[in-house]
Amino acid sequence: MKVQIVKDILSANEQIAQENRRLFDEKGVDDIVAGNRRSSEHTREYAIARLGIPAVQINTGGACHLDANMVCVALPRLPLDETDLLFIENVGNLICPTNFALGEHLKVIVASSPEGDDKPYKYPGMFSVVDVLVLNKVDLLPLLQFDLDYFRRGVEALNPDVAFFPMSCKTGEGVQEWIDWLVERCRAG
Amino acid sequence: MKVQIVKDILSANEQIAQENRRLFDEKGVDDIVAGNRRSSEHTREYAIARLGIPAVQINTGGACHLDANMVCVALPRLPLDETDLLFIENVGNLICPTNFALGEHLKVIVASSPEGDDKPYKYPGMFSVVDVLVLNKVDLLPLLQFDLDYFRRGVEALNPDVAFFPMSCKTGEGVQEWIDWLVERCRAG
Repeated sequence: MKVQIVKDILSANEQIAQENRRLFDEKGVDDIVAGNRRSSEHTREYAIARLGIPAVQINTGGACHLDANMVCVALPRLPLDETDLLFIENVGNLICPTNFALGEHLKVIVASSPEGDDKPYKYPGMFSVVDVLVLNKVDLLPLLQFDLDYFRRGVEALNPDVAFFPMSCKTGEGVQEWIDWLVERCRAG
Repeated sequence: MKVQIVKDILSANEQIAQENRRLFDEKGVDDIVAGNRRSSEHTREYAIARLGIPAVQINTGGACHLDANMVCVALPRLPLDETDLLFIENVGNLICPTNFALGEHLKVIVASSPEGDDKPYKYPGMFSVVDVLVLNKVDLLPLLQFDLDYFRRGVEALNPDVAFFPMSCKTGEGVQEWIDWLVERCRAG
């Protein structure tokens, strides 16, 4: 019953999400949503643009998550015909982005080890819907009271098929494994 | 114009918040809202209860913030007549709790240094409404690319009167300053 109500509320969003998805498929774009971002890269758009990679900033106007329409109106500003892989970076909160499809093929969460090993238990909604879980800042693990087994058990109870990548963007540990997985998936998809 | 609309939407919540506030004042309760919590203390209710301190857990049912009514229905389960200081712990996200008054006297944000020094710039709404800013996990600062001056400038541009407490709950650094300030404020209030 509850599921039915949620469906009704989200149906307009869902419809636009499907339109976005149709456009991605037509243009041959594999796209990825990072449901959560924790690293301090507020200048990411400029950094990415400086590398010659097309980037568009979406202002949510204070809203706590992206919706399909915000993505839809941003897409004409990107050269989708020449794009193979599109990252959509969502607002960094572990609740609100959970229920709003954007048209993406893959949902990624970037968790951060200093946040604590309890996060899958505290935010089961988010951790149960993602396809990929990146655990960043693992270089700090020796300094934290973070039980990696406890964290993994929490994730796997919710989401046994999730692809899990422990990583440190600072030291580079684990980054190659994630890139290899992504490239392989794009080739297959 | 925009402010007017927000007021209308929030008016039912605001009314209940004022009722909560009236009750706190009548019972002589100083209360505090931590607008954000980052530490891995999902067992906090049990830990607090074990110390003999009355605690009630509020289940938001998946919602991304507390509202005044959730607080209102929880209050009868607390011995307010014997309570001097009440902490209301909100959902740990930096957007949604911003606009919902609960009846509190003081808003506190507990930021965490590994989240990055850009957070005041990324979430100005939250950082501009708080009375107190605790920056936790400062024991990790030497290991992070965290510019404390940049962080403070961002906060002070939004909120010049905020009380700022750098702290490490792990090492105990800065905790006493925060407690002293709180005790002083309760005495004065």
